[in-house]
Amino acid sequence: MTDNAFAPRLTVEQVEEGDQLAPKFDGDGVLPVVTTDAGTGEVLMLGYMNAEAFKRTVETGEAHYWSRSRKTLWHKGATSGLVQKVVDFRIDDDQDAVWLRVEVAGSGASCHVGYRSCFYRSVPVGKPVTPEMKLTYREDEKTFDPKDVYGDAPNPTQL
Amino acid sequence: MTDNAFAPRLTVEQVEEGDQLAPKFDGDGVLPVVTTDAGTGEVLMLGYMNAEAFKRTVETGEAHYWSRSRKTLWHKGATSGLVQKVVDFRIDDDQDAVWLRVEVAGSGASCHVGYRSCFYRSVPVGKPVTPEMKLTYREDEKTFDPKDVYGDAPNPTQL
Repeated sequence: MTDNAFAPRLTVEQVEEGDQLAPKFDGDGVLPVVTTDAGTGEVLMLGYMNAEAFKRTVETGEAHYWSRSRKTLWHKGATSGLVQKVVDFRIDDDQDAVWLRVEVAGSGASCHVGYRSCFYRSVPVGKPVTPEMKLTYREDEKTFDPKDVYGDAPNPTQL
Repeated sequence: MTDNAFAPRLTVEQVEEGDQLAPKFDGDGVLPVVTTDAGTGEVLMLGYMNAEAFKRTVETGEAHYWSRSRKTLWHKGATSGLVQKVVDFRIDDDQDAVWLRVEVAGSGASCHVGYRSCFYRSVPVGKPVTPEMKLTYREDEKTFDPKDVYGDAPNPTQL
């Protein structure tokens, strides 16, 4: 994908060791975004940005994503009020992934299911995976009721 | 992708609210993995797992990834000695992304360029993106010299 706002990717050294912004979007035109709570370090969610979401996030300082399920630009918090203010916008060595450190407005939650983090369950480690394996909950209760916040909007989870 | 070690994905409620492990791998057979330092909370890298890497990580307690550039199972640290011991293995709401909290052996670095984190540069926020924009370095120096550790092995970064 070519975008005049970004530098062209010319050499590995330039991309890894330089100070030019030359992000790489994948075949679907997106790159993955890790979002953490700037205060606690907790990983809140993993999302995706296309070039437009990337540029709007940089310009506005509020996290924008590309919703793969809804196929639309997504200003996080536009519906729920749980806007993510970007404290630090990091990019990785080969510039195909982003890490946002954010402060979340309101209740501080970021997960559409109602939890603070989307990663509210753990897989037990140290034994082979079996269909009987049980996940462990890491958050005791939901921060909000999704029905109150999203009403009848379709659930973004796809099977 | 069907794998008998995992539960089948039957309903949104089961996947989001249940305790069954039913991960979703994408069209390429992988899912994204966020890896953070269990001590500092710093995001070290963003990698990918296929079903085999997922199962080996759970069973051994050491991070395994699928290397998209080398198209091979990748036991992180096998070459460099910088093995990642998994302290907590989280999975997200729709079970298509993983968060590993790890302790890194040796120097504690996780980036093939030599830095502690792959996310060693920041994009300045608050102004429109332009080709002249300059990235800011967040780590002052490399933790190791990649030539000492990897020798002549090909650089995994692709343009």
